Amino acid sequence: MDTAVNESLSISYNLEQFLIVLSVSLSIATLSKTVPILRRIPYTLLLVIVGMALAFVDVKLINLSPELIMEIFLPPLLFEAAWNLQWRNLKENWFPIILFATLGVVICVVGIAFPLSYWGGMELAIAFLAAAALSATDPVSVIALFKELGASKKLNTLMEGESLFNDGVAVVVFLILVGIPLGTSTFDLSTTLARFVTVIGIGVGCGLLIGFSLSLLTQRFDLPFVEQSLTLVSAYGAYILAENLGGSGVIGVVVVGMVLGNYGSRIGMNPRTRLIVSIFWEFVAFFVNSIIFLLIGDQIGLSSLSDHLNLILIAIAAVVVTRLVSVFGLSLISNKVSDQISSTHITLQEQTVLWWGGLRGSVAIAVALSVPQAIAERQAIIDIVFGVVLFTLLVQGLTTQFVLKGLDLIGDQPQRLEYAELVSRQIALRRVLAEIQKSDEFPDIDPERLRYKQELVQGQLQSVTDKLKLLLQEYPLLQEVANKKFDQTVLDIEAETYADLIRMGRLEENIMPLLVTLEGENVVE
Amino acid sequence: MDTAVNESLSISYNLEQFLIVLSVSLSIATLSKTVPILRRIPYTLLLVIVGMALAFVDVKLINLSPELIMEIFLPPLLFEAAWNLQWRNLKENWFPIILFATLGVVICVVGIAFPLSYWGGMELAIAFLAAAALSATDPVSVIALFKELGASKKLNTLMEGESLFNDGVAVVVFLILVGIPLGTSTFDLSTTLARFVTVIGIGVGCGLLIGFSLSLLTQRFDLPFVEQSLTLVSAYGAYILAENLGGSGVIGVVVVGMVLGNYGSRIGMNPRTRLIVSIFWEFVAFFVNSIIFLLIGDQIGLSSLSDHLNLILIAIAAVVVTRLVSVFGLSLISNKVSDQISSTHITLQEQTVLWWGGLRGSVAIAVALSVPQAIAERQAIIDIVFGVVLFTLLVQGLTTQFVLKGLDLIGDQPQRLEYAELVSRQIALRRVLAEIQKSDEFPDIDPERLRYKQELVQGQLQSVTDKLKLLLQEYPLLQEVANKKFDQTVLDIEAETYADLIRMGRLEENIMPLLVTLEGENVVE
Repeated sequence: MDTAVNESLSISYNLEQFLIVLSVSLSIATLSKTVPILRRIPYTLLLVIVGMALAFVDVKLINLSPELIMEIFLPPLLFEAAWNLQWRNLKENWFPIILFATLGVVICVVGIAFPLSYWGGMELAIAFLAAAALSATDPVSVIALFKELGASKKLNTLMEGESLFNDGVAVVVFLILVGIPLGTSTFDLSTTLARFVTVIGIGVGCGLLIGFSLSLLTQRFDLPFVEQSLTLVSAYGAYILAENLGGSGVIGVVVVGMVLGNYGSRIGMNPRTRLIVSIFWEFVAFFVNSIIFLLIGDQIGLSSLSDHLNLILIAIAAVVVTRLVSVFGLSLISNKVSDQISSTHITLQEQTVLWWGGLRGSVAIAVALSVPQAIAERQAIIDIVFGVVLFTLLVQGLTTQFVLKGLDLIGDQPQRLEYAELVSRQIALRRVLAEIQKSDEFPDIDPERLRYKQELVQGQLQSVTDKLKLLLQEYPLLQEVANKKFDQTVLDIEAETYADLIRMGRLEENIMPLLVTLEGENVVE
Repeated sequence: MDTAVNESLSISYNLEQFLIVLSVSLSIATLSKTVPILRRIPYTLLLVIVGMALAFVDVKLINLSPELIMEIFLPPLLFEAAWNLQWRNLKENWFPIILFATLGVVICVVGIAFPLSYWGGMELAIAFLAAAALSATDPVSVIALFKELGASKKLNTLMEGESLFNDGVAVVVFLILVGIPLGTSTFDLSTTLARFVTVIGIGVGCGLLIGFSLSLLTQRFDLPFVEQSLTLVSAYGAYILAENLGGSGVIGVVVVGMVLGNYGSRIGMNPRTRLIVSIFWEFVAFFVNSIIFLLIGDQIGLSSLSDHLNLILIAIAAVVVTRLVSVFGLSLISNKVSDQISSTHITLQEQTVLWWGGLRGSVAIAVALSVPQAIAERQAIIDIVFGVVLFTLLVQGLTTQFVLKGLDLIGDQPQRLEYAELVSRQIALRRVLAEIQKSDEFPDIDPERLRYKQELVQGQLQSVTDKLKLLLQEYPLLQEVANKKFDQTVLDIEAETYADLIRMGRLEENIMPLLVTLEGENVVE
């Protein structure tokens, strides 16, 4: 057949398949957020279930190859998570995160491989591959739940931070281990360690290079769409560059995302651009996750899984127990030194959530799919990983909400966030209104247009005020939060005034002004 | 070689190529908008030039196939243009637009084909194919110029509207004509007309079906990213559905875009969502145009063009003359009946811009590339179209700014600067006056002196106000510029308020505050 015709049919076919996948995903997304009972089920889980149902009726969607996941889907997901990971929060929790992402991976690999080998009869070198794949966590399913149920920022940071870094470590460990069964490398501790550090280092280097270059570059101009496109280029570019240089592409993307999200977006973008870019990446993450989990479900071949059921069961048990040991053990260590190194203390309840919320997902599957064909037990590894992913998504994913509630780790965080957002909007709209009403500020605008705009803003302001009133009626505790913040603000104003006056030399430094606006209340928290 | 390895290399290679293309495009975009002399050159033209330069040094980028353009690139471009085409503006100018898009195409096809056949020696049936391809206009390059130089909304609507509809008509005409040299159909007026109407009708039907279904669907929920994804699905979905049913995919996309942009986005989306979606599509259009014009430049094989230089020259002359006849002739007709049917009157100056601004671009090239291999003169057709596209982009594209200025159709930069300066002075003087009039602000100044200063300032204020009035009378377009800046200012106030609040710790960073003060206006650039 004509190659051009072939290519034409191929593009059309792929496009149609892609649209079908997207439409199905969107329908599920819509249902999951509008139908009340479905709201507490991680929407990614629903996608997997529907995908499996489609596979059951023999509907084959796009073929999920490791390249598709690792090169097309993963970079944007990692970038978005890294972009949103605030440096401030990371700094507070850095020690446990690093521990979990490094030692945690080692514990995981060892803790899963040996049972698989000892009880499952797998060759140890092969078992290590499966274990490496399974050491990458994918909390997207529970993070959404955290937001919905209002878990603390600390929990969020710990789970996201751990996941971002253990993805990279897991992939590198896998790469190092995959040479052994193939006979292309042997396990020699010092060279392995050196290689590990090199690969990670190159990834970090690429991320920093691209991240800081782009940060400085975007300072020089103000073109929102160009800057937005550049973040897209940076995500894929960091991945490809690091991989080409023999480093970890995953780490590269994570680093570039953090640099741009925390630094570049502040020095190089104005507030409006930063906002537009953030919204864009939120959309990209939603879009990619919608596709990837549906495809995962579609590829889980239940018949194939049953072939290796015993191995899967061993792996599931190993994964759960290993994570228990890893999380609680490392938290113990972390908590012991937490005071000396100004890091946070992780409570037992939080450890429980970290343990049970350690789901596996796309990275584990991508790594498993990238096991070379030359390895005979490739299908066994894939089945084990798919099996564990299915279990964690179904069992752990569905029950995490109960764990959170049972341990009383949910707060009124969603309401607090909504409250803060409404108040901010109110402030912003009032400022806009004040500007518009200053009749001399826009002398060149038709008064009719000004009045129309004014009415529009007043309408929005009214709607926000009404929402606030309703919210406060439902959650009267928020009023206390508001009052507290007010007191704090008043105190801040006074403190800053004194600081200014001292700076201006109008007040002597060693006079201790009385902070008299407050009468002994605790305003600091 | 292993097919998996093959596929892996293929995906990696394509991704790297794509990133390179994107990076080059973004660099050009940045330069074109930051370097002053380049600002009046259509940025799409710069892309073509750089693409040609790259081809010259043998850098081959992604291969541009008709499927790639028609199925991947075109739907989003058409959708975005249709989404932004306001029904209100279309209604005012419907008659000339329909005339240009239908009779105009016919005149074009005839007026280009016959010279090519008579003077160029081409077989008429083949010449018709080239002519059909060349009857689709692509004004993206001049629309950007219109915005930069402040041409009227009417001119914008006429060019965009004509282009959107003549794209569809040109593609359908081509499809009907391509059967003739292949021997699969004969030119029979009644069946041809019937086929034409059917194809267009199916396209319109698909567009309306998908457009209205989605409009009603999105009314039922408020999930911004789902709604945004649905617009993406609708663009490609309408194209594919129409094509599969034997209709015009191009018309399908245009119709669905207009339905969603004018109707669906109003009844189904709240203002925030509508804004986010509009910004998203603006970005997509920027993104796709950046890639497509670079690739076009890269594919223009100058050596191949020289083979058919005489045909190209004939075609260029024919295109220019035919458009002259078409625009001025049809405008005459349109103007004659414009009063009776409440349509606008097109001035001679505007007709001149419409004539000279009728550039050819991606649709023409896509149609040319889709000429079947079975037709021997395929390369000649492609060369002719590339040659004409190059000419229109280079010659017409570069000179349109002078045509606009010469015909006094723009709010000229000197006037804009003067306007901005006068407005600033007015604001400043008013502020001064307000300060002086606050009798308590300068208690230490002699009232006589205060009054003297006040009268002075009032005099200056009056003079500035008078000058402004005169300026606006001469250049009413300045008002539109002012209005846009006003909207942007309001948006900035909001965004900066949020940035301040985040900085003060009163707002969580990862809340996406609403930007609700604007109603889907273009606020990004």
